[in-house]
Amino acid sequence: MSFIAETPQPPYYAVIFTSVRTGGDDGYAETAARILALARQQPGFLGFESARDTGEGISVSYWASLEAIKAWRDRPEHRQAQAKATQWYASHRIRICRVERDY
Amino acid sequence: MSFIAETPQPPYYAVIFTSVRTGGDDGYAETAARILALARQQPGFLGFESARDTGEGISVSYWASLEAIKAWRDRPEHRQAQAKATQWYASHRIRICRVERDY
Repeated sequence: MSFIAETPQPPYYAVIFTSVRTGGDDGYAETAARILALARQQPGFLGFESARDTGEGISVSYWASLEAIKAWRDRPEHRQAQAKATQWYASHRIRICRVERDY
Repeated sequence: MSFIAETPQPPYYAVIFTSVRTGGDDGYAETAARILALARQQPGFLGFESARDTGEGISVSYWASLEAIKAWRDRPEHRQAQAKATQWYASHRIRICRVERDY
């Protein structure tokens, strides 16, 4: 699997998740891997890219539609993980974007 | 300066730059710092976030409009840096996005 996601022709959607981790693992790594595996099975999932540098990270997931993003957001396993955000992240921001061009 | 960009209320624009670096510096670090300093002075620049993990990186710059992105893309110093992309990156992809919601 290459690092750069093989997304289709635009338009499609991106969720940019920028975060600063708190110290310690606290179940984070295991949950992150499990949640990503679930996302990959979700209808409309197009790809995922992530990089983290000493606690500061950017993850981008790509989706076919806003509906697909909403369905994933509301999935119970994902909701449970979201509830731990304040434990795992000192700060974080989520941006929902429409990808208009890529090259 | 905090890691997470203090962007205004949407809508605004994001340029997601995903890349895999080649080995060696080859003027990269100096140019990257200079180009970012220039971008920050550009009209419509809203913010910048970047993370790199063993050569695989995601950088996101935020902009007020597509016109601001185009003006920055065409600035001569930026064009010169773009011409070195194949030297610095084994692969890279640029996605131009409209940020519709953030939280």
